[in-house]
Amino acid sequence: MSTTDFFRNMMDTISRRGRHWFTGREATLALPAQFRPDFAALVDALLSGRGEASGVARAREILEAWQAVDDGQKRDFFTLLAESYGPRADRLDKAIADYKADPGLATQAALHRAAEPRRQDVLRRLNLAPGGIATLVRMREHLLGIKRGDAALEALDDDFAHLFASWFNRGFLVLERIDWSTPANILERIIAYEAVHQIHDWNDLRRRLAPPDRRLYAFFHPQLVDDPLIFVEVALAGAIPGNIQGVLAEGRDAIDPKAATTAVFYSISNCQEGLRGISFGNFLIKQVVEDLRRELPGVTTFVTLSPVPGFSRWLKEMRADEGERSDFLTSADRMVLQALDRADWTLSPALAESVNAVLARVTAHYMLRARTRDGRVIDPVARFHLGNGARLEAIHPLGDRSTNGMRQSYGVMVNYLYDLDHIEANHEALATRGEVVAAPAVHALLAAPDTPAPAQGGGRFRIGGFSRTRGEGREKEARS
Amino acid sequence: MSTTDFFRNMMDTISRRGRHWFTGREATLALPAQFRPDFAALVDALLSGRGEASGVARAREILEAWQAVDDGQKRDFFTLLAESYGPRADRLDKAIADYKADPGLATQAALHRAAEPRRQDVLRRLNLAPGGIATLVRMREHLLGIKRGDAALEALDDDFAHLFASWFNRGFLVLERIDWSTPANILERIIAYEAVHQIHDWNDLRRRLAPPDRRLYAFFHPQLVDDPLIFVEVALAGAIPGNIQGVLAEGRDAIDPKAATTAVFYSISNCQEGLRGISFGNFLIKQVVEDLRRELPGVTTFVTLSPVPGFSRWLKEMRADEGERSDFLTSADRMVLQALDRADWTLSPALAESVNAVLARVTAHYMLRARTRDGRVIDPVARFHLGNGARLEAIHPLGDRSTNGMRQSYGVMVNYLYDLDHIEANHEALATRGEVVAAPAVHALLAAPDTPAPAQGGGRFRIGGFSRTRGEGREKEARS
Amino acid sequence: MSTTDFFRNMMDTISRRGRHWFTGREATLALPAQFRPDFAALVDALLSGRGEASGVARAREILEAWQAVDDGQKRDFFTLLAESYGPRADRLDKAIADYKADPGLATQAALHRAAEPRRQDVLRRLNLAPGGIATLVRMREHLLGIKRGDAALEALDDDFAHLFASWFNRGFLVLERIDWSTPANILERIIAYEAVHQIHDWNDLRRRLAPPDRRLYAFFHPQLVDDPLIFVEVALAGAIPGNIQGVLAEGRDAIDPKAATTAVFYSISNCQEGLRGISFGNFLIKQVVEDLRRELPGVTTFVTLSPVPGFSRWLKEMRADEGERSDFLTSADRMVLQALDRADWTLSPALAESVNAVLARVTAHYMLRARTRDGRVIDPVARFHLGNGARLEAIHPLGDRSTNGMRQSYGVMVNYLYDLDHIEANHEALATRGEVVAAPAVHALLAAPDTPAPAQGGGRFRIGGFSRTRGEGREKEARS
Amino acid sequence: MSTTDFFRNMMDTISRRGRHWFTGREATLALPAQFRPDFAALVDALLSGRGEASGVARAREILEAWQAVDDGQKRDFFTLLAESYGPRADRLDKAIADYKADPGLATQAALHRAAEPRRQDVLRRLNLAPGGIATLVRMREHLLGIKRGDAALEALDDDFAHLFASWFNRGFLVLERIDWSTPANILERIIAYEAVHQIHDWNDLRRRLAPPDRRLYAFFHPQLVDDPLIFVEVALAGAIPGNIQGVLAEGRDAIDPKAATTAVFYSISNCQEGLRGISFGNFLIKQVVEDLRRELPGVTTFVTLSPVPGFSRWLKEMRADEGERSDFLTSADRMVLQALDRADWTLSPALAESVNAVLARVTAHYMLRARTRDGRVIDPVARFHLGNGARLEAIHPLGDRSTNGMRQSYGVMVNYLYDLDHIEANHEALATRGEVVAAPAVHALLAAPDTPAPAQGGGRFRIGGFSRTRGEGREKEARS
Repeated sequence: MSTTDFFRNMMDTISRRGRHWFTGREATLALPAQFRPDFAALVDALLSGRGEASGVARAREILEAWQAVDDGQKRDFFTLLAESYGPRADRLDKAIADYKADPGLATQAALHRAAEPRRQDVLRRLNLAPGGIATLVRMREHLLGIKRGDAALEALDDDFAHLFASWFNRGFLVLERIDWSTPANILERIIAYEAVHQIHDWNDLRRRLAPPDRRLYAFFHPQLVDDPLIFVEVALAGAIPGNIQGVLAEGRDAIDPKAATTAVFYSISNCQEGLRGISFGNFLIKQVVEDLRRELPGVTTFVTLSPVPGFSRWLKEMRADEGERSDFLTSADRMVLQALDRADWTLSPALAESVNAVLARVTAHYMLRARTRDGRVIDPVARFHLGNGARLEAIHPLGDRSTNGMRQSYGVMVNYLYDLDHIEANHEALATRGEVVAAPAVHALLAAPDTPAPAQGGGRFRIGGFSRTRGEGREKEARS
Repeated sequence: MSTTDFFRNMMDTISRRGRHWFTGREATLALPAQFRPDFAALVDALLSGRGEASGVARAREILEAWQAVDDGQKRDFFTLLAESYGPRADRLDKAIADYKADPGLATQAALHRAAEPRRQDVLRRLNLAPGGIATLVRMREHLLGIKRGDAALEALDDDFAHLFASWFNRGFLVLERIDWSTPANILERIIAYEAVHQIHDWNDLRRRLAPPDRRLYAFFHPQLVDDPLIFVEVALAGAIPGNIQGVLAEGRDAIDPKAATTAVFYSISNCQEGLRGISFGNFLIKQVVEDLRRELPGVTTFVTLSPVPGFSRWLKEMRADEGERSDFLTSADRMVLQALDRADWTLSPALAESVNAVLARVTAHYMLRARTRDGRVIDPVARFHLGNGARLEAIHPLGDRSTNGMRQSYGVMVNYLYDLDHIEANHEALATRGEVVAAPAVHALLAAPDTPAPAQGGGRFRIGGFSRTRGEGREKEARS
Repeated sequence: MSTTDFFRNMMDTISRRGRHWFTGREATLALPAQFRPDFAALVDALLSGRGEASGVARAREILEAWQAVDDGQKRDFFTLLAESYGPRADRLDKAIADYKADPGLATQAALHRAAEPRRQDVLRRLNLAPGGIATLVRMREHLLGIKRGDAALEALDDDFAHLFASWFNRGFLVLERIDWSTPANILERIIAYEAVHQIHDWNDLRRRLAPPDRRLYAFFHPQLVDDPLIFVEVALAGAIPGNIQGVLAEGRDAIDPKAATTAVFYSISNCQEGLRGISFGNFLIKQVVEDLRRELPGVTTFVTLSPVPGFSRWLKEMRADEGERSDFLTSADRMVLQALDRADWTLSPALAESVNAVLARVTAHYMLRARTRDGRVIDPVARFHLGNGARLEAIHPLGDRSTNGMRQSYGVMVNYLYDLDHIEANHEALATRGEVVAAPAVHALLAAPDTPAPAQGGGRFRIGGFSRTRGEGREKEARS
Repeated sequence: MSTTDFFRNMMDTISRRGRHWFTGREATLALPAQFRPDFAALVDALLSGRGEASGVARAREILEAWQAVDDGQKRDFFTLLAESYGPRADRLDKAIADYKADPGLATQAALHRAAEPRRQDVLRRLNLAPGGIATLVRMREHLLGIKRGDAALEALDDDFAHLFASWFNRGFLVLERIDWSTPANILERIIAYEAVHQIHDWNDLRRRLAPPDRRLYAFFHPQLVDDPLIFVEVALAGAIPGNIQGVLAEGRDAIDPKAATTAVFYSISNCQEGLRGISFGNFLIKQVVEDLRRELPGVTTFVTLSPVPGFSRWLKEMRADEGERSDFLTSADRMVLQALDRADWTLSPALAESVNAVLARVTAHYMLRARTRDGRVIDPVARFHLGNGARLEAIHPLGDRSTNGMRQSYGVMVNYLYDLDHIEANHEALATRGEVVAAPAVHALLAAPDTPAPAQGGGRFRIGGFSRTRGEGREKEARS
């Protein structure tokens, strides 16, 4: 009702002033070429007045100056913060001594305060400027681009990361559905930000937003106007899909959302480089699962259709390797996989079938058994979803026939299943025992190499890979 | 335009879920009397899963449990956090050793991290729950009510204060104008929260909102829906007023805002006890000054009409005191001031005139010269405005004839002037030299005791106090 | 989503400019006392330019002038329109001749055009001014106040009525729920407009809006901002109530709307005198029935709790009458009803019981059999609901013990039942056969005078009147 | 403020239900092939119940049925309305007789009522259905496509036109600015509806919306959601432009709106074929002029940059004609104009210069002197703007070098100037004296054929045409 509306007005204010800042992103303010603000003096002033007298104006001044200066001065500003605004050594030493003398709640707290780099206070005060957070995010984006190998900048980045994790806490984010009635300037960003399956133009975007069986959800921060933090694209379907080309096909018929049983998360894109390392995806997926469950009670299966971006590189390594690590490849496997070195291996149905049988099994191995030196799952996308508590649900050879798909994973895609009742247990299995939870049919691949999986009458799913080439690209996966 | 609208939708979401939480404020959830959640286990679970698997649900669970339990369990929860979730001693000791061995950016940062009480992480994770911040603010409200003298609870309160200062940073707040078209449920809170000049009923509220020369502005946090953090009431006027009864009078004629020269901040109320110590007032006043300046270029004077809440008590002390501190009182003064011990001293115009002449001078002394033992300005309202960089502009005997006004300050009110061009200098004068900046006529009071101030043709203002009783309550202050 | 938001912006525009006009309602524009606009010239100019050049400005000018002039000039303006802007006689005569010569579609249409009073065109052109409709409604309000007995003004009023019926067509209205988060300026009007059961103050209003089992719905016209056309107050209940004091009681416990079975329309108020005769109530009730049915599937009974405003007067007539029309009153009845001439007849339970038994039966007669000279149902509220297709569901002696209730109907209230499946048939029965459809128990009253109604196990309801005094005001009505 | 917000909610309701209807535009409801509703019975039912019982449901039923049936039944429905729902002959004859017997206000009014075709009442009742107006507009769109030559359908169309003129009265319309933050679904329609200078794709649209010196305004009706009625595209500029390619150029630099002196209306498109003949353009332009004047006080000149769509055809006629009407063409002119018969006449600068000199003069003649047989200005765009009270400001040979521009007017464009202070007089001159008001320089063209216009130091403008080819397409027009 209109209470809500009242609060909508807030967004007016935010939006208006945010817009002001936002333009800064594109247009550099027109300042004299020799513009050399004395950042040390400005920052001292910002800290000294204790924000009492004119903190907002001071903060705005520094943020505008920073946007206006050249890259050299930008770096100097960062170095200044990192090196001159750490904790005060004398105060810290005294706090350590006090704590050592009498460890307790009070001395602990005092030590914590004394150890806080004053940089964090600088950053908090810069945030006094209405809309300043947008500039701070861009600051960190810039910092990330130049920090590598510079210990001071790394330390400063830790401070940004610490504060951003607190400020962009999930409790402060707002989930919004994006659709074809969303303002064009936001849609334009969605096109730009899509990182998994490129959106080619406005028609492509429309196909992902307008049909009744398509959804796009994004997290926003109330102070970062017009600019999503992360978004996920969802297809409502009657079954778990095994290939992305079918999902994105131009001519397809939409289904009635009320008839859908399955929500497919087929693309997740982070939008703000300046928020790197602040985790949103996990919260986003789970919120969308909750919301869709409420809206569409018929939808009971929530899966991804995901790329396997580390697979090709790893498989090449394994094929080059002769040692124990690549044991799982039989010499028959190695022979079959030679086909991968030719660009046209998919053209022969018979050849493709035997290659895909091996790829399916090898992908299962890659997921379930292979690990990095420090014991982690190798594939970054797998690490994300499995870490979120999803389970590996199915493996789809030739799930992505695009150039990129063939290059990164020889076309293999996978589904991860989000079952909110099991995510804690799944997460726990991985975190404590290093165990990837997967559907029986995925496990079966390892058990019965090279033989097609048996019919899966009683199972919840089956691996569609084997029948794919026979099925000529049509989806054959089914759920009971 | 409609980008803005898009973001307004965010507020829908926030508002809807916020409302859910909000109701918790009034209605305790109906839970079994023997409801005894195992908070230790819940908090461990919240921390352990690293929020990856089901942090939002865990956080919600704890917040709901906390709202449902009795006061004893609420305190136990706080004690648990304070005592069991400090920094880990071993990790902290090691970080201290490392820092001592090799002081530098990296070991400093590690020390800061190791010193952070894990309670802060608990609080951040509780904030994962959408709308959780409202409950956290109520948690601290509860904590403030019971913490006194309990070191553990004091330590926990420090953590709340630290996080709230960051989360309620001015950059995240939104200024909204409240008027007669604001939803009734918000207006209802304004009535409840007004702390300076009570709003008696809806008609009284209407008189403060609906006339074109009246304004009310509030800060909101996007996640604390329907619930202002602080608000200020403003009267637009043709001159600096010297008494509050005139401002709040029922029958008065409104003036055209375009004809106004002066904006009078006549009441500022903090709304959220749970945010005690987080400073909003300074930012609010300055933002409103900026906004009004833009909207109404004719308004060039921004003053408060403020109570002097510490004056009566201090004056009683001075009158009881015979020592050096009360030197400024002549024996004639003391005689005149005996009138204050009678309730009816204002009834005789002649008597009131002589009393008020002394009160004006003594108030000037109270403001400009008297100090607390640790050297601070005595009056809390004065400390606030002077600390913000305002200057003491005028002193008005019988500015507030209400029972409360007579009790706390024998009716004296003052104006503080906000001149954005001078606030830094004014603040500096106070902060570094302990000097209160005041208008010449205020200084003149000290120089020329007991003689009426001369006509102030060229000045920007004059002290209205002397002529007040003669003028029978009509405003006689004028500005050139 | 945000398409909607886009259109919300329209309302900004409307609202902004509407507000401008609206203020005209309270404040007369400050115009010279001798302001005597030449309305004839202004109206000629408005018509002549054919609105092509500056119709909007012309319209605004006339509307503003009309608002500014005194009552005499206002009437002159109306008379001018009525007398000088009828159809052109020559053109009309020619159209009649053409039609007579060759009756057909074309000559009919031409005749219709020629017969249209040019006043209607004047009114349409006055509506060119954005927000002008608000002033036109106020114009007619004024006209209604003075038209009686003046044929010219009556004719002009017909034109207003004709256009308003078209402009305020139900298809252009918007149903809005009013609740405690509605802007105060709208709530203020609700208080002012309530015409059936007075809203005493803001607390009374809150009791009708804020509890979860209370609703208030209004129709708005997009161009009449902030100002409802009509509203209905609804109580959600577990049974059909038989008295209004219970519905409005201060201390009552709210029920969970999901547990409600019955929606009770206990007050319907038209807001705009200027729209008299334009029918909204029927559409409003049916829309609310539809909406509630969708929102709360548990609510299956939709009834009014209605006054019987014509009853006392009619009954007095009948008692005074000795003829055939009052046959239904036995001499025993007449004796019992003498109690009505004493103010205190309700004080004796035994007396009240026998009076109420007669009143119930007599009310049934009043509703089912008594008719005006031209054959219509006598009671205006009954005519409204029965005409809408509702059925008379129950009769409640002492349903309204307020002074007004006792005066207009000796306390009798009734329920009308809206069953969308039967409204056409009910309406038809009344329209074609003059037959009022009523519940069996109502009919039973006529059949079995003066004996308490039998227990109504199988019926959908029963008449609560008899047991009322015994039940000491508690609701005893029940539905199977 | 939030009162506004309250009314925004209306649009939610409207928008939601409107959307429902709207979809009907694209998707035919899936109904049995043999669906043959009995429209006569349905319409009778709609009229008979007098809308009291279930008018809304009846109306919805008919509108849905009409959308579902095939074209044959659609026509039958129209014919039914036209032929069976005229005025009742007996009633009309009686009203005529009464009027003849006693002409007066009452008999006039009765005659008018009796002459009203009952079709109009049918249409008004169809509009009872919320959102029904959208379907009614589409109904008329359909009717316009088939009515030609069918007197019955023509009569019905008159009824539509009569009601729409009243319902879409300017006072009910809302002006909205469309920009790059407008929802994509509305922008999509703008692309589709643009009728003057085609919008090629989303980038082209962005160029017309996003730069700070570009505007697009549309009229909406609150009940026709998401769907503009008419829109105008505006370029803010520093001078009156003389060619459209410069206005639409891809690479151009935007100017600061505050520096603009001139608002150029370069495209006006009606959107709803079903509202043909209902005039919006005049009101739209004048409202935008008023709004821009308020927003940007520096903008003092409001002109169009308009096509001359009837020019080529007329000039061909004149060249073919040998009589008096084409006197103004000298034989030298005729010779020069032979160049127009070759596609490449613009390639030779010298040739083009002489052709354009003649074209400029001939265009002046076309505008100022040539008339249709019934005495009207020939060019339809000219008739529109001149009828609105604009004056012909300048003539620009080669103002539009597009294929379409060359075809319809040999590239000639013109400016019409909207000066609100003169529109009434200009309109009057045309309406009463048939005189086109034009700038002196336009008149000068007629006076001094074939000689370049003199330098116009003191004038407000000059004709850029002559120097155009020399200036190689750059804008050379200037205003003092």
